[in-house]
Amino acid sequence: MQIQPVVILVQPQLAENMGMTARAMMNCGLYQLRLVSPRENHLSDKAVSASSGADEILQNAVVYASTQEAVADLQQVYATTARHRDQIKVVHNAASAAKDITRQCQNGVKCGILFGPERTGLNNDDVALSDAVVEIPLNPKHCSLNLSQAVLLVGYEWYKQQIDTPDTYLSTNGTEIADKEKLFNFFEFMEDKLQNNKNYQDDEKRPRMIRNLHNIFQRSQITTQELNTLYGIINHLSDNLQKK
Amino acid sequence: MQIQPVVILVQPQLAENMGMTARAMMNCGLYQLRLVSPRENHLSDKAVSASSGADEILQNAVVYASTQEAVADLQQVYATTARHRDQIKVVHNAASAAKDITRQCQNGVKCGILFGPERTGLNNDDVALSDAVVEIPLNPKHCSLNLSQAVLLVGYEWYKQQIDTPDTYLSTNGTEIADKEKLFNFFEFMEDKLQNNKNYQDDEKRPRMIRNLHNIFQRSQITTQELNTLYGIINHLSDNLQKK
Repeated sequence: MQIQPVVILVQPQLAENMGMTARAMMNCGLYQLRLVSPRENHLSDKAVSASSGADEILQNAVVYASTQEAVADLQQVYATTARHRDQIKVVHNAASAAKDITRQCQNGVKCGILFGPERTGLNNDDVALSDAVVEIPLNPKHCSLNLSQAVLLVGYEWYKQQIDTPDTYLSTNGTEIADKEKLFNFFEFMEDKLQNNKNYQDDEKRPRMIRNLHNIFQRSQITTQELNTLYGIINHLSDNLQKK
Repeated sequence: MQIQPVVILVQPQLAENMGMTARAMMNCGLYQLRLVSPRENHLSDKAVSASSGADEILQNAVVYASTQEAVADLQQVYATTARHRDQIKVVHNAASAAKDITRQCQNGVKCGILFGPERTGLNNDDVALSDAVVEIPLNPKHCSLNLSQAVLLVGYEWYKQQIDTPDTYLSTNGTEIADKEKLFNFFEFMEDKLQNNKNYQDDEKRPRMIRNLHNIFQRSQITTQELNTLYGIINHLSDNLQKK
């Protein structure tokens, strides 16, 4: 397994939240969980059920008595919290933290991310134990987040840094985007079928009509498979036309 | 309210998930919810309780009988789904979709984002009704996501596009980062207190020791408040030294 940050829940209250955290972690490819003095049992049926199949993370979770012990072997610790205003501290948004953590891990630095108890969040002393603060940008009018959702959002940002996939692409179902020659041939075929159209016969209107038609299809990145569909439809329509 | 995309849940099953979706939407500053044939009542106590204070979104939600009706007044529709492989379709990851939706909204285009039923996701016909697909990048070994978490992640990406805050900064609690002159004065003060130190007296070792000390403090972006703390500590230590 590549080096990855440890997720540390400080005094989590509910077994369900620990289970949902494990699920969120697995969603994001994070596998190392530490728990500081959890109130409920993280291996209870409730926790395992809430983990939706991510119970291996719960089973491998390590329990500590204090935050200080839980971070003792780490070299860089991040505190997820909105409350740090009275401390002089580097603050990352979740995306920036994910980049920083990824870079640190690549350099072999052992990283951990702290998440506080459900109701109160991390206390000042736990924030002071950490090297930087992580803030999740959310609507300030309604930013209360379930513990596992906070883990999900930070984990999601981390996961995005681990993958190298295009931001956007045309899913072509195995067919190819038509090259210009194929497209121009199709345009000619279509125009051929339009010989009897009134607008097409009008020398003034024809160029504009043709450009419009070209633009409709050129905005779509038509594939060769789709061109065949279009050929079939136009043939069908013009056959019907001739039969009239 | 600025123009923003509509969130459309297609045949959601559980009231709890509709409530949690409302909560996730409000977390992300999204307020317009549409429901296509919900199985349970989106205004039930269960739904309202799960919304954690975002019940205004549930109360304002509009219910439709079909996806087609729910998107009829929209101009650009996005389908959140992992299953689109057999369709020729533009695919965005969540961040790219958020950018695209934001740009469309800025251009006055009415946008909607479809989310499918809990167990099955959107069916092919609903995907075909949409202009583009949104994929949430997640660990392929465990990508099952609660409905409200899918809404949260897409909404979070959308919210990030609406804000203009720095990725990272030093939270200084009202104090200023010390300018170099203040820092150099502090270094001189510190060196003055080190006159009796053995390494400092060694002409060969001194330059290196001084550079090390400078680097420790220069990596930290010390603030003027922190400099005062350091002055106080060094004074205290050197006083104690003299008393010995």
